[in-house]
Amino acid sequence: MLNITKLDDPLFSPHSLNKFASLMTSGNGYMGVRASHEEDYTQQTRGMYLAGLYHCAGRGETSELINLPDVVGVQLEVNGDPFTLLSGEIVSWQRELDFSCGELRREVVWRSPSGARVRIVSRRFASMAHLPLLAMQVTVTALDEDVSLTFSTGIDGTQTNSGRQHLDELSLRVFGQEVLQGAWATQSSDTEVVITSHIQLSQAAESCFAAKNRRLLQNSSLLLSAGDSVTLDKFNWVVQREPDSLSLETFSRRCLNELQTCATLGYDALRDASLAVWREGWQARRVLVNSTNPADQQALDFTHYHLVAMTPLHDERSSIAAKALTGEGYKGHVFWDTEVFLLPYHQFTAPQTARSLLRYRYLNLPGAREKARRNGWHGALFPWESARSGHEETPEFAAINIRTGLRQKVASALAEHHLVADIAWAVVNYWHATHDEAFMRSEGVSLLTETATFWISRAVEANGRLELHDVIGPDEYTEHVNNNAFTNYMAWHNVEQALHFVAQFGELQPAFAASAADFLQRLWLPEPDAKGVLAQDDTFMRKPTIDLTKYKAKAGKQTILLDYSRAEVNEMQILKQADVVMLNYMLPERFPDAVSQANLAYYEPRTIHDSSLSKTIHGIVAARCGNVEQAYHFWREGSEIDLGEEPHSSDDGIHAAATGAIWLGAVQGFAGLSVHKGELHLAPELPAQWQRLSVPLCWQGVRFTVEANQEAVTVTSAAEISLWLWGRKISVNGQQRYHKSDFISSKIGTATMVRAE
Amino acid sequence: MLNITKLDDPLFSPHSLNKFASLMTSGNGYMGVRASHEEDYTQQTRGMYLAGLYHCAGRGETSELINLPDVVGVQLEVNGDPFTLLSGEIVSWQRELDFSCGELRREVVWRSPSGARVRIVSRRFASMAHLPLLAMQVTVTALDEDVSLTFSTGIDGTQTNSGRQHLDELSLRVFGQEVLQGAWATQSSDTEVVITSHIQLSQAAESCFAAKNRRLLQNSSLLLSAGDSVTLDKFNWVVQREPDSLSLETFSRRCLNELQTCATLGYDALRDASLAVWREGWQARRVLVNSTNPADQQALDFTHYHLVAMTPLHDERSSIAAKALTGEGYKGHVFWDTEVFLLPYHQFTAPQTARSLLRYRYLNLPGAREKARRNGWHGALFPWESARSGHEETPEFAAINIRTGLRQKVASALAEHHLVADIAWAVVNYWHATHDEAFMRSEGVSLLTETATFWISRAVEANGRLELHDVIGPDEYTEHVNNNAFTNYMAWHNVEQALHFVAQFGELQPAFAASAADFLQRLWLPEPDAKGVLAQDDTFMRKPTIDLTKYKAKAGKQTILLDYSRAEVNEMQILKQADVVMLNYMLPERFPDAVSQANLAYYEPRTIHDSSLSKTIHGIVAARCGNVEQAYHFWREGSEIDLGEEPHSSDDGIHAAATGAIWLGAVQGFAGLSVHKGELHLAPELPAQWQRLSVPLCWQGVRFTVEANQEAVTVTSAAEISLWLWGRKISVNGQQRYHKSDFISSKIGTATMVRAE
Repeated sequence: MLNITKLDDPLFSPHSLNKFASLMTSGNGYMGVRASHEEDYTQQTRGMYLAGLYHCAGRGETSELINLPDVVGVQLEVNGDPFTLLSGEIVSWQRELDFSCGELRREVVWRSPSGARVRIVSRRFASMAHLPLLAMQVTVTALDEDVSLTFSTGIDGTQTNSGRQHLDELSLRVFGQEVLQGAWATQSSDTEVVITSHIQLSQAAESCFAAKNRRLLQNSSLLLSAGDSVTLDKFNWVVQREPDSLSLETFSRRCLNELQTCATLGYDALRDASLAVWREGWQARRVLVNSTNPADQQALDFTHYHLVAMTPLHDERSSIAAKALTGEGYKGHVFWDTEVFLLPYHQFTAPQTARSLLRYRYLNLPGAREKARRNGWHGALFPWESARSGHEETPEFAAINIRTGLRQKVASALAEHHLVADIAWAVVNYWHATHDEAFMRSEGVSLLTETATFWISRAVEANGRLELHDVIGPDEYTEHVNNNAFTNYMAWHNVEQALHFVAQFGELQPAFAASAADFLQRLWLPEPDAKGVLAQDDTFMRKPTIDLTKYKAKAGKQTILLDYSRAEVNEMQILKQADVVMLNYMLPERFPDAVSQANLAYYEPRTIHDSSLSKTIHGIVAARCGNVEQAYHFWREGSEIDLGEEPHSSDDGIHAAATGAIWLGAVQGFAGLSVHKGELHLAPELPAQWQRLSVPLCWQGVRFTVEANQEAVTVTSAAEISLWLWGRKISVNGQQRYHKSDFISSKIGTATMVRAE
Repeated sequence: MLNITKLDDPLFSPHSLNKFASLMTSGNGYMGVRASHEEDYTQQTRGMYLAGLYHCAGRGETSELINLPDVVGVQLEVNGDPFTLLSGEIVSWQRELDFSCGELRREVVWRSPSGARVRIVSRRFASMAHLPLLAMQVTVTALDEDVSLTFSTGIDGTQTNSGRQHLDELSLRVFGQEVLQGAWATQSSDTEVVITSHIQLSQAAESCFAAKNRRLLQNSSLLLSAGDSVTLDKFNWVVQREPDSLSLETFSRRCLNELQTCATLGYDALRDASLAVWREGWQARRVLVNSTNPADQQALDFTHYHLVAMTPLHDERSSIAAKALTGEGYKGHVFWDTEVFLLPYHQFTAPQTARSLLRYRYLNLPGAREKARRNGWHGALFPWESARSGHEETPEFAAINIRTGLRQKVASALAEHHLVADIAWAVVNYWHATHDEAFMRSEGVSLLTETATFWISRAVEANGRLELHDVIGPDEYTEHVNNNAFTNYMAWHNVEQALHFVAQFGELQPAFAASAADFLQRLWLPEPDAKGVLAQDDTFMRKPTIDLTKYKAKAGKQTILLDYSRAEVNEMQILKQADVVMLNYMLPERFPDAVSQANLAYYEPRTIHDSSLSKTIHGIVAARCGNVEQAYHFWREGSEIDLGEEPHSSDDGIHAAATGAIWLGAVQGFAGLSVHKGELHLAPELPAQWQRLSVPLCWQGVRFTVEANQEAVTVTSAAEISLWLWGRKISVNGQQRYHKSDFISSKIGTATMVRAE
């Protein structure tokens, strides 16, 4: 038994409905279905999304993941009282998401306003064995007396993305007494969606159908005897049809047949088939920790569950949305989050998935080239926010400016260009972890060349050198600056690696080689000051500071924008998230630990951590600098972005990058994984709370496990693997145990020793 | 004091939320705002509509009244508990619509789940003095202890018509601390909507704004001391901008100025200004009744309130939607309901309004001509369902066919052509009531000629005569029949009147005169059988009957379609609504009372009354036949279509025609008003429950009042008026009292006597 943790929704509260709807999303990489209750609540946002299914709903809008017609809703009446936990009495409540198989379960005993007690048990999962299948079951038991029940459920096309409708209804129809089917087309006619639902009650009921106002419903009434139960099984098949495939009619008939086959198997058999697929992933990829805080293992299981549920293995034209498939935040767009925060997990545990995600960028090179050209540059300028087409999808406006009353423009698409270098960075990392030559010769070389070409064209002559002007670094509270350290260093790394790998795997054009060499020689790379602090950009150090205590206490909520306009924030030393610290994290070979330490000390007090990308990165840098307890503190805080107690933290979706960062923190922070000169390094250093950490990894085709405790490390590998442990090269084939004391004399020295190598 | 009745919402129930939201709609003919509560409920459908503001939201859809961004919603939290009447305790409840001024008022004492008692009083009205103004007020009083309150309100653009979105967001902005403004364009760019809201709290509060996901909200928090009250005043200015008017910016600034001027006046002064306009209408047009059942006066006041609230006096390009401006049923489309059920009220009390409504049809002649031509006919075939453009707007599909699982096509647009003759009928009625020569010479003659031309071209040679094939009469449960009696007689009347009035007011073309004369001579007009029964159509009498008891018990719900497909219903003697009885009602000069009586007796048992147009018409025909008690019974049932206890009767809007029919029943039924040979007839005959009936009327420019009791009638007129009372011509100038016993010897004889004339 794997003994995988679960996530509890501890009590029913209107305030936390949407948080748990996000956290407990049923997903399989193909679809995501928010864990909304079967019954409606005014604050509850339902959501069902297919990976890559975007559409733009009108003028001034950008493409967004379509919130599809709902199938989860089941309106139940007990003796005429609508079942809602706001009225009557909740006699008992239990709700959990079982990470092991992604099954969401709720068991409620409810006393209706008229006094009838019923037990309502509901379960659902998105199948890993049949990706288009969402299976549901609701069982009602009459606990004391006979009750009359009505169930109303079907396919509800009134769903919108906050009022934006993407779909035109093509048809609604019914087959026999049990099957409903609806077909919709996106308003731009790019694609069609067919949803088929098979609904069956375990007892005879009086049923009728209604098709009105975009809703297709089956309404059933029955009398349930005291002590009896009735079960509603509902199987839903959700697919999109590309216009050049089968005719809609043939396609719809096929959906019907596939669904009927599933329905014949029944809920439990379908769940077992899905569980079997999940189990393989857990066995191969789960990070295990023995901690005094059981929430630590839960956080790591949360990460594996969601990283699988959000990743579209089936389709390399799709990548991972910033809120996964769990909500509409950021409209389902893809950011640098994927390459920087999510790719490492796949690269080190399921490299084919990392390859597919990089292919997404490769396939979107045309849009990136076009964006560069439109702005007067060469090469590839990837869109800051990306969807299906590869074109820029960043919305135009953000929050209201408290001074002018007008909405403030979003500048990221114009100037937040570091993403280009981040993608190149990810390509290089992928190469080191996989030595995937086929990829590097084709996609890798293209991505590196095009990104490097962009930077070379982006640099300007100034002060007798090359500079990068008018950019935004990861810290989005500081816009339109020159020589942002993060951007300059990452661009330099981009061009350097391109030069290296193109020479090795492609054809190095002399013109490119010359301009790249010139760029590398002349690009201004700001130096740390005497204390080791790197200026975030040309003007940052001259700006005033203010006390950020009250804003840091509400990190993630951007409360500073309720007191200051963005323009005002821009003119102070206020960071939304790590910027120089992030740079230290990404290019550890480039910066001695003393520099990282100095930057952490300087910038952290100036950082609100209003971005969910911030804290865990601070934690990893702290761990690398030997501050394991500080690292653990950051790591815990990072894992609480979604899993903490703030009831609205995740209303519009989980924070995919922060979820990936939970794994990064454990593996790059506490297992000390890093790559230097293309070689794998480990330097486990567990926080006091952890007795054991076990990490399965895949390095250049070899799968192995690293298990660390406070004193020793055991490496288990079925094939020969070479790596550096605490600064010393080791080679393992089979199982080998290493005592830390044989490597380093004291904890204090650890970091210095390893880095000194 | 006019002592106008009110409408009570007797208790809070999730089941009746939408019924009362419709019945208590705030309206002024320009806008309609559903009486949704400030707080949200999952079953509650909010709605704000502007008369004539239609848009078509996508493929397969038709134009519909746009459900505009919501301003009514106010989310209140008391000590962190969301205010909802589903939780906590309702200590006291009172809710009413004051018909006299259209003010909706609610007073609730609520104990929150955490135990704090608050009184919440809310009021709102749509202003008759400033049509674009919706004024609202919410006052919260802390009854026992200090409470923390948060108010969240603004302009919510997530509203849709059952998921169909019509508007693209153009801008959202804030002025100062109190004013929010949003601008939207229809997706087809035809028009823009600007909504401006002025929000003010009577106590200092901490406020901030949020603009996200189509919502622009002001969030305010404050601590309210025990015993204290805080009042939120919210004034909303809702207008549309035609693209060729002022620039959006200038227009928006003007909205802001107009609203600011209103806000300065304050809620009470604004309400008084609106009340003054209402009062004039009540004084001039109110029907008064002394009845043993107080609901009778309420039904009549309900009628006046809603007939004013639904009628777009300001715009002759708009007419009246079948559900008024109170909901989305029938998508806000205009049917024959306007001319047949609503126009008489205006024609007899405010003829300018009737003229404007007929002008709507006149202005839509181009669309009607086009529809006729497209179908191979001449003249004007008005669309069965009409919106702004004058083109056919009938949706393609209705309910699911219980046999095939497919949605059933709506045939009305193809064959329900009697509407054409109904419009001509209304033109003639308007002429008699007003002698408006200017209208008749222009609009009247055009409408009569074009409609008559249609019928002439529509008739076919068959059986050696002219017949009308493949039509649908008012009874929509019988489709695609030949020689529907209603249609044939009304078409004949149409052509006859056209010939008459064109000769009098226009230029009679010889060709038209000849073809009209031929039509009148040769059109087949089925004759009553020996018992006086007129066959509904050629095949009706050969169809089988079934027991309709169970369906009649659920009249209005179309439950028969849960047991039979439409095709099956079509082949039985099953009527949705009065058809031949309706004909008897519309052309009383044509049919002796004995015929009406026979048809009533034959058809009523075969009529489910699934249409709201059915019962009151039966009542009027019964009254004319002298069956006053039966008439009263039908009238009461007709008034209960909206005002009865069925909680879902009016979810998607009131039944405008049935509302008009309440007036028709009182005036044409019990006051016995009819027009014969262009002269006004009255024959009051009150039901036993009524002691007095007072009806203000306007006839050919003279305003007068008829007051009847069981024995006598008093006519009061400031100018000379001639009319027929109980079959005898009278002339009044001043006040005159007439004793019934001087006119007729016994009740039994009444009807016969009058008709014999």
